[in-house]
Amino acid sequence: MIINDTITALATVPGISGIAVIRMSGDDAVKIVSNCFRGSAPLMEAERNTIHFGKIYSKNYLMDSVLVSVFRNPHSYTGEDTIEISCHGGNTTYSLIIDELISQGARQAEPGEFTKRAFINGKLDLLQAEAVSDMIHSVSVSGSIISARQLHSGISTKIKKFRQILLDACSLVELDSDFSDEDIEIINRKDLKEKAEEVLNFCTSLIESFNSAKIFRSGFYVAIAGFPNSGKSTLFNSLLGRNRAIVSQTPGTTRDYLEESILVSGVAVKLFDTAGLRETEDAIEIEGINFSHSVLSQANIIFVLNDISISEEHSDSLYKKIQEDYLAQKVYLIQNKVDRLPSLPEINKNAYISAKYGEGLPDLFNIIRTEIEKNKANINDILINERHLILLKGAAEAIRRAISELDYLSPNEIIAIELHDAARYFGEMTGQAWNEEVLNNIFSKFCIGK
Amino acid sequence: MIINDTITALATVPGISGIAVIRMSGDDAVKIVSNCFRGSAPLMEAERNTIHFGKIYSKNYLMDSVLVSVFRNPHSYTGEDTIEISCHGGNTTYSLIIDELISQGARQAEPGEFTKRAFINGKLDLLQAEAVSDMIHSVSVSGSIISARQLHSGISTKIKKFRQILLDACSLVELDSDFSDEDIEIINRKDLKEKAEEVLNFCTSLIESFNSAKIFRSGFYVAIAGFPNSGKSTLFNSLLGRNRAIVSQTPGTTRDYLEESILVSGVAVKLFDTAGLRETEDAIEIEGINFSHSVLSQANIIFVLNDISISEEHSDSLYKKIQEDYLAQKVYLIQNKVDRLPSLPEINKNAYISAKYGEGLPDLFNIIRTEIEKNKANINDILINERHLILLKGAAEAIRRAISELDYLSPNEIIAIELHDAARYFGEMTGQAWNEEVLNNIFSKFCIGK
Repeated sequence: MIINDTITALATVPGISGIAVIRMSGDDAVKIVSNCFRGSAPLMEAERNTIHFGKIYSKNYLMDSVLVSVFRNPHSYTGEDTIEISCHGGNTTYSLIIDELISQGARQAEPGEFTKRAFINGKLDLLQAEAVSDMIHSVSVSGSIISARQLHSGISTKIKKFRQILLDACSLVELDSDFSDEDIEIINRKDLKEKAEEVLNFCTSLIESFNSAKIFRSGFYVAIAGFPNSGKSTLFNSLLGRNRAIVSQTPGTTRDYLEESILVSGVAVKLFDTAGLRETEDAIEIEGINFSHSVLSQANIIFVLNDISISEEHSDSLYKKIQEDYLAQKVYLIQNKVDRLPSLPEINKNAYISAKYGEGLPDLFNIIRTEIEKNKANINDILINERHLILLKGAAEAIRRAISELDYLSPNEIIAIELHDAARYFGEMTGQAWNEEVLNNIFSKFCIGK
Repeated sequence: MIINDTITALATVPGISGIAVIRMSGDDAVKIVSNCFRGSAPLMEAERNTIHFGKIYSKNYLMDSVLVSVFRNPHSYTGEDTIEISCHGGNTTYSLIIDELISQGARQAEPGEFTKRAFINGKLDLLQAEAVSDMIHSVSVSGSIISARQLHSGISTKIKKFRQILLDACSLVELDSDFSDEDIEIINRKDLKEKAEEVLNFCTSLIESFNSAKIFRSGFYVAIAGFPNSGKSTLFNSLLGRNRAIVSQTPGTTRDYLEESILVSGVAVKLFDTAGLRETEDAIEIEGINFSHSVLSQANIIFVLNDISISEEHSDSLYKKIQEDYLAQKVYLIQNKVDRLPSLPEINKNAYISAKYGEGLPDLFNIIRTEIEKNKANINDILINERHLILLKGAAEAIRRAISELDYLSPNEIIAIELHDAARYFGEMTGQAWNEEVLNNIFSKFCIGK
């Protein structure tokens, strides 16, 4: 597999900003940039980790004044010769420069291709590579800090340690088999079982943190549902602290669902305003209501808003139905429009609010905060993703089988097979065991330019 | 004015990307980063234009692995000690690092503050500084390339040359006054008038390019208007080449206006789908129609869409009204839904299209392309902005007055006053003459981090 052709991509977000950075990696990185760069000294002789000011030309047209950073193999992120061009931000300049680099022989990088090369060149293991992606996609302070630690290899060390324990145990079991005719017991089956249980506990605690990890990866989703005109858009605006949704007294005003983010306890909370749920013949409204259901199914919390000025029980049937339909979600009935009541009811078992006048909103924020903190407590040193979950479940199953074979006093060969299997799953986590398909799968989820 | 306190800001667009760059400038830039950076060698001794790999900590928490670029006064963009921290992209990491830099003594930079310092330290003149902002905000390839040239000082040289011509002429005129009693004619009034006319021509040609420049700055705006159900959203989707707007047979489906960009002739063309224009009692629809009018007033081209299946003249009154109301816009009547006709009318004076089946769309693209090319032909070496326009108009007025004084054989003193006035306007363009208010005005329009 030849991987040292020269790739290039924008490494920053396109848009209005001071600078944009274009990254290149591969054998010809320095040569290709040299062809279109004019600075005070030739780039080809530039020492590693140095920065050079100059101009980028395309067919004698000046494209931009830039800074070029030179990194030399193996002292770079990818382990290859690497160039970073820092040009002016905006939506056009970077693309003109990338076009020129491609016309000089570079190739547009695929998503995650720089990090994939870093992995293949031994600069990062797979868990570290995934931590890079996690940091970038993190929507929470905690998620970002956990990923930084993971990138710094804390968790890889642990996984590698447990893998080694499994492999050592395998060796002993296999050695024991060799001496089985001679009545020499090399392994203590009780010790072996304890070790297996230790690894199993490690697996299950990581598996349990998966749902919480999701929140730190993608954010915490709060959906506002209810009958038309129960005040959903008003509540949405109040929670955001600004007028985002058109509010009107006409039922069915909101059609496309709206989505905005706020930060609670260092976690990005995505608020969703949905179309009012009702039986309707209006085709546009039906489309909106279908959207609502898809939003609710992804939510962590659903606030079902009731218009208490109609009656306190007005939305009970809807509340019950949503509870039944969305079992994985925490569903709360919220009594809205208390400002329209002469006085508040005595029993305050649910949140009683006035979305319009901002009363009772702290209750809702408390509900959100409590749920987030519950999840924070579950988080380990690693943010489990779907790939890890599948591998950990596989490892846990194999270890459970090994333990039950130990209990049944099965022959060593059988136990060794299970332990090997578990070790293989661990190896796939860190990338000590990998194949092209696994890699492609992982890196295709990266953003371009990383 | 002390300006060497240390400022910091994100210099890239926040969001999902490989890297983000934080910029710092000021006397303490290196010291502040040193306090939270751990690399293989101390930053304080780092040579200029070198890059250092290491980790950023905040209160012993690892924030990220980063690359730190060190620039030393005066060899930096601002002319001060400058640091650029290249960290992982995303929405949280950069802000954690900036928080730490601020807690170590840096200050959040104001918009354009880095470039303002570059100007004050003589690294750029004002036209170049504005070209930096123009490059960043450019929505067109041509705009970006013109700005790159302007940054490279082409236009500044020209303006400075003409300013010098004016100042030289002033000196001669004043010298001539001193010798006026002695009947020595130092200046040839005919030559002087020719020179003044040359400068005036330069001014007026730049002034004329203002409207065209606008297109290269902000893009070319195309609005689709028409009665409800004339097929506006369908045309919007067809021109975009994807389904962006909800299309339905119900009149009044589109409420909020929609805006999307496509690239035509290297210029960003913003397409606007607007709410159908009709008399209505519906409050939400009225809000939508008010939006429509504000969109139309900003458009370069308005396509008035007519449903030819009703009748070819059905929208004539609306077309006429829009032509009368929007005098600055090019208004085109487009006959839509030709697919519903048994056969096309014979005279094809306007574009006859089927938005639904994509027929006739090339005609519309041709209309857009022709308008853009007309504007391209008007563009000079400089993209005039509002500030330049005012200064150039001032200069042109002063020169015109000088010329008419010359024609009236007015005394030298009067002519000198006008020429001085014109030179002052030119000086304000390049920043050879400036004051704090002018600077603040210019740089406040920059993005943060530049």
